[in-house]
Amino acid sequence: MAGNTIGKIFSVTTYGESHGLSLGAIVDGCPPGIELSEADLQLDLDRRRPGSSRYTTARREADEVKIQSGVFEGKTTGTPIGLIIENTDQRSKDYSAISQTFRPGHADYTYHHKYGNRDYRGGGRSSARETAMRVAAGAIAKKYLKQQFGIEVRGYLSQLGPIKAESVDFTQVESNPFFFPDASKLEALDEFMRDLKKRGDSIGAKVTVEASNVPVGLGEPVFDRLDADLAHSLMSINAVKAVAIGDGFDVVEQHGSEHRDELTPDGFTSNHAGGILGGISSGQPIVAHLALKPTSSIMVLGNSINTQGEATEMVTRGRHDPCVGIRAVPIAEAMMAITLMDHLLRHRAQNLDVSVATPTLQMKD
Amino acid sequence: MAGNTIGKIFSVTTYGESHGLSLGAIVDGCPPGIELSEADLQLDLDRRRPGSSRYTTARREADEVKIQSGVFEGKTTGTPIGLIIENTDQRSKDYSAISQTFRPGHADYTYHHKYGNRDYRGGGRSSARETAMRVAAGAIAKKYLKQQFGIEVRGYLSQLGPIKAESVDFTQVESNPFFFPDASKLEALDEFMRDLKKRGDSIGAKVTVEASNVPVGLGEPVFDRLDADLAHSLMSINAVKAVAIGDGFDVVEQHGSEHRDELTPDGFTSNHAGGILGGISSGQPIVAHLALKPTSSIMVLGNSINTQGEATEMVTRGRHDPCVGIRAVPIAEAMMAITLMDHLLRHRAQNLDVSVATPTLQMKD
Amino acid sequence: MAGNTIGKIFSVTTYGESHGLSLGAIVDGCPPGIELSEADLQLDLDRRRPGSSRYTTARREADEVKIQSGVFEGKTTGTPIGLIIENTDQRSKDYSAISQTFRPGHADYTYHHKYGNRDYRGGGRSSARETAMRVAAGAIAKKYLKQQFGIEVRGYLSQLGPIKAESVDFTQVESNPFFFPDASKLEALDEFMRDLKKRGDSIGAKVTVEASNVPVGLGEPVFDRLDADLAHSLMSINAVKAVAIGDGFDVVEQHGSEHRDELTPDGFTSNHAGGILGGISSGQPIVAHLALKPTSSIMVLGNSINTQGEATEMVTRGRHDPCVGIRAVPIAEAMMAITLMDHLLRHRAQNLDVSVATPTLQMKD
Amino acid sequence: MAGNTIGKIFSVTTYGESHGLSLGAIVDGCPPGIELSEADLQLDLDRRRPGSSRYTTARREADEVKIQSGVFEGKTTGTPIGLIIENTDQRSKDYSAISQTFRPGHADYTYHHKYGNRDYRGGGRSSARETAMRVAAGAIAKKYLKQQFGIEVRGYLSQLGPIKAESVDFTQVESNPFFFPDASKLEALDEFMRDLKKRGDSIGAKVTVEASNVPVGLGEPVFDRLDADLAHSLMSINAVKAVAIGDGFDVVEQHGSEHRDELTPDGFTSNHAGGILGGISSGQPIVAHLALKPTSSIMVLGNSINTQGEATEMVTRGRHDPCVGIRAVPIAEAMMAITLMDHLLRHRAQNLDVSVATPTLQMKD
Repeated sequence: MAGNTIGKIFSVTTYGESHGLSLGAIVDGCPPGIELSEADLQLDLDRRRPGSSRYTTARREADEVKIQSGVFEGKTTGTPIGLIIENTDQRSKDYSAISQTFRPGHADYTYHHKYGNRDYRGGGRSSARETAMRVAAGAIAKKYLKQQFGIEVRGYLSQLGPIKAESVDFTQVESNPFFFPDASKLEALDEFMRDLKKRGDSIGAKVTVEASNVPVGLGEPVFDRLDADLAHSLMSINAVKAVAIGDGFDVVEQHGSEHRDELTPDGFTSNHAGGILGGISSGQPIVAHLALKPTSSIMVLGNSINTQGEATEMVTRGRHDPCVGIRAVPIAEAMMAITLMDHLLRHRAQNLDVSVATPTLQMKD
Repeated sequence: MAGNTIGKIFSVTTYGESHGLSLGAIVDGCPPGIELSEADLQLDLDRRRPGSSRYTTARREADEVKIQSGVFEGKTTGTPIGLIIENTDQRSKDYSAISQTFRPGHADYTYHHKYGNRDYRGGGRSSARETAMRVAAGAIAKKYLKQQFGIEVRGYLSQLGPIKAESVDFTQVESNPFFFPDASKLEALDEFMRDLKKRGDSIGAKVTVEASNVPVGLGEPVFDRLDADLAHSLMSINAVKAVAIGDGFDVVEQHGSEHRDELTPDGFTSNHAGGILGGISSGQPIVAHLALKPTSSIMVLGNSINTQGEATEMVTRGRHDPCVGIRAVPIAEAMMAITLMDHLLRHRAQNLDVSVATPTLQMKD
Repeated sequence: MAGNTIGKIFSVTTYGESHGLSLGAIVDGCPPGIELSEADLQLDLDRRRPGSSRYTTARREADEVKIQSGVFEGKTTGTPIGLIIENTDQRSKDYSAISQTFRPGHADYTYHHKYGNRDYRGGGRSSARETAMRVAAGAIAKKYLKQQFGIEVRGYLSQLGPIKAESVDFTQVESNPFFFPDASKLEALDEFMRDLKKRGDSIGAKVTVEASNVPVGLGEPVFDRLDADLAHSLMSINAVKAVAIGDGFDVVEQHGSEHRDELTPDGFTSNHAGGILGGISSGQPIVAHLALKPTSSIMVLGNSINTQGEATEMVTRGRHDPCVGIRAVPIAEAMMAITLMDHLLRHRAQNLDVSVATPTLQMKD
Repeated sequence: MAGNTIGKIFSVTTYGESHGLSLGAIVDGCPPGIELSEADLQLDLDRRRPGSSRYTTARREADEVKIQSGVFEGKTTGTPIGLIIENTDQRSKDYSAISQTFRPGHADYTYHHKYGNRDYRGGGRSSARETAMRVAAGAIAKKYLKQQFGIEVRGYLSQLGPIKAESVDFTQVESNPFFFPDASKLEALDEFMRDLKKRGDSIGAKVTVEASNVPVGLGEPVFDRLDADLAHSLMSINAVKAVAIGDGFDVVEQHGSEHRDELTPDGFTSNHAGGILGGISSGQPIVAHLALKPTSSIMVLGNSINTQGEATEMVTRGRHDPCVGIRAVPIAEAMMAITLMDHLLRHRAQNLDVSVATPTLQMKD
């Protein structure tokens, strides 16, 4: 495959550019008999949708998904699920200006050199628009994991620029436009974003995703470790520059006596490992952190070159998120869910039980 | 596949446990007509070998690789290359003690729950011993990339515990037992490690890998981005807990005006992106950072449980690295080379030129 | 994947049931810069379409394909090509009768037992309706092979029931409703089919597909031999029960001195091998034969059971081909083209030239 | 992968040339806890071994397999099983003569053009020697299928040249050197072969493989149909030119009223379909037929060309089977078992029961 499929048993293949007729996905390998409706998918699509807050792009995108196949009388049939979202708001003219110039920090330059013939409208295939199908497909995995195993995949914005969440309250996450888990920082966030917009600049962010009640034993040695496949699926999200499991880069300065999670008859006493040992889930919550770069589409003047290699200066007008990290939360949930579901099915293929998660005294992230 | 293969066109499949008869790999998809000898592989195997310095385990492992197939009259034939390393130093008795107990921080617990029947000797399949085959296979990729395209993949230890490299001198890297690029810190490292051994503890580390002279255009949208596949292959290395590309987690606090790498007719003016834009190589050096946890095999007493779930205390005796990060340098080089080679072949499959890298004014890591 | 994708580099993934909203495919791995329009695909879709002659089903299916992505300004971009055909003529009521009964010879029984929840309308996923997407995707491969390498993939009906083609005239194939290459048999065919319809029965058929001007060297040892992959792709067509390469089952009674194709400086002197030696194309025309069973949807009363396991009798009313083999011709061409294109790209991945076919003194099929 | 791996969940990857140091395979995805010893594999290896009768090549090949990994204390661990057979009898000098000439009917010509650098000794990678690893890997699948599900995979020689088996007695198959199921033809076979050897010629053959007690539901729509994957795995065997399921090419002249297998409360009343409907197993015995071409290594003088394209004449001296079809019986069993096991695991991945086969009134082949 040329890179547009993820997952080995539960697999998702997508197509679509920012300004094509539609975006689509084929979800293959979903077990039969699962209740599934478009409403199940729409929920997460709406969480991701731009324009859902004044801090994200004002693009009007209905993002209405239609299930084309694989569901009969309200239940999955085990055959491939076809998903389509028609592109409604295209405004090609917005983009014609950049057809001959490479926006710094964007994929314009690399797509041009790789393919020669690139769809420059809105970034074409490299646009974050593509992630809508990931969220739709991921919603199927999220529902299956929750309904069949009680596995819950939840994400939040753990840091925006200098502002860090100091507490994690999941009820907060859905009640503010930042997916931010620490209510005490909302005012600071609001102020920071307003100032940012004034300057026409953008900012990076850190997103954390967790999966709770994950069974012991998911993950394959030695290349398809659960953490390696999570790193792949999470790093494949636009703008992500780093992925950490558990303590991540903090382990560099830790001693073994400090890092190793000790075991007691009641479970683990800590979760520095982020729920994965030797590439296999330990039954503890799986914790991953993502670093998202600031969007490169800003109003600040920047140097670049055109397709002839001549120097030019440019600003990126149009409707863009000052912080792409915010909308990345439901996308990160979707990718983690897709990877967990794929590994759950792979685990089962070898006739291995999917056993219940072990008790946990204390969870650290 | 059950997780023991990596790469889609240039693929590596491995077998072997710490104490089995042998370790082996099948390298499939290597183009024909490439000069290849066992000496080409042995070089990196020796760099990885334990006992190569007093700071790594004293296990005697000849790690002598034998090419079984795929090479005729000194050149590759395009058919699969079979590689075997016989296990010489096994000492099973060392391990019998832990057959009923889960070493904290190790895969004992997860393998036991996933498979039921686990080879507990030396960690079995989860042992770092398995990485010997990665290094052997990676050496084939390294040679091909260097010989055919002048692509050079080089790594170094960028941090050990609190001690950071402040300068990068590649001539230094091969001339000290730490693969450390900053000679001014060698004495501090030496002292730190001596103290660590005295206490029977271990420490984490950060490894940096770079690929220079990489062509523009390697990487596939949208899931098999080059950075996503690198995250997968690097995170699949034992003990790795985080992978960063370019500025990694630093991007969280960066502004777009600061992060985006501007272009000039002479090339990029910075490399915050680590050589990858939109998942495709930009022609700049590719820069990845890995976080390696401290080994959990230490002399410090720790709490655990046995297979009956009863509480127990244990120390891990035997020959273990106080810092697994040191030996991870050649392994990280191997994994990056395997991923780059796979993408180079995938790129070519679509009849795309492998063009020369663009000039670079300044490289940042 | 759960079986709905074919091809490793040039890959086709499909979704859709006989009576779903639409049929769709994602074609991944198509090189960029190839001129492509919906008209290119429609040509073969029209050849396959039912109702194109009075000998095939009267179902009205516009089968109008729409390209959703992957083509920009008339040329492929190298990103996935999304294809959709909306289902227009559904008539669900025709099928409600069979929801509780297994039609003998159909997949009703096996889908019911495999999935529990099956879409019984028109056979759901097991309907030949699904092959429309194969033809659309195959047309992309056919155009690429023809335009870039002069490779031509052509099929014909070589036998219908007892009536065999004794000569092969490709100009004839497109000028009669049977894709039959021997004009002298058209009257006999016409009479045979009229009699068949009168009796409400069906008949089997043999289809032959050839690829000419195929380069030497396509095919991989040892499992993905070109003939093995052709066997897979051709056997995956509905109703196919056998696949033969070159002389096929005739080789059972041949001597080595008779079968082996001798070589001369001017090329091979025969083509018993059907253009493939050791799983790799020899430069001779590739010749494959398919056996298609008679459709099981007939007016003749038959015994069956219902989902409760009770005995029942049934006839299959509705619009069905008395010989599915006829419409299989463009489908077989499509599958051969997809497999050849996939192997051509795989061949190129290893940096192997795509050399010109060798001259051939005489071609045998 | 470059073609040396088969199977998606239960996968087999092989390496090795006729005259390399060793042949090897990595069997990945085998469930843990299965009793397995080298004796289990040796049984089928001995059935395949040349020199086991005076009708097969006199090459002395110990073909002694050694399990390198994946088995601990007599049971599989779920990690990859490494298999090695050392090449003992090489006699390179036998082959030096053909280094510059293409043996007609062999892969010499195609390998030379594909790879440039080919191992001409004994056909290198294209030698039937490679099938030893298929038999070893297949024996693991055969044992698992038999032990866990009572599925039995058995093959026999159904025709040799003009001599057809008219009855099938499986007790006969293992008691004569031809794997022939019809004792009344043994004398005729013996005479035919003696005459054939006198003339230095070879003959084709037909092999039939059956799997009994196969559960309903194995196979995936639409490309990875069970019959399509069987066609792939069986056609990948050296010298196979055709694969048929059930009635195979006979269906061309059958009417629907004759072909369709009717159902009764006691099961199917016939098995024209060969146990597969819509690509999914029906619970009836799976029946496949293979056509094997006569070996091209004969003493009869033949025309060919050398690597310079100059005309030459040659005979193939050395030790060769006059009928490769005989030894193909255990190989065909192995390939069918590998494919069935892979599909059984794929089936289970989707959480589908592996239900018992339905009763069968009458089996036809």
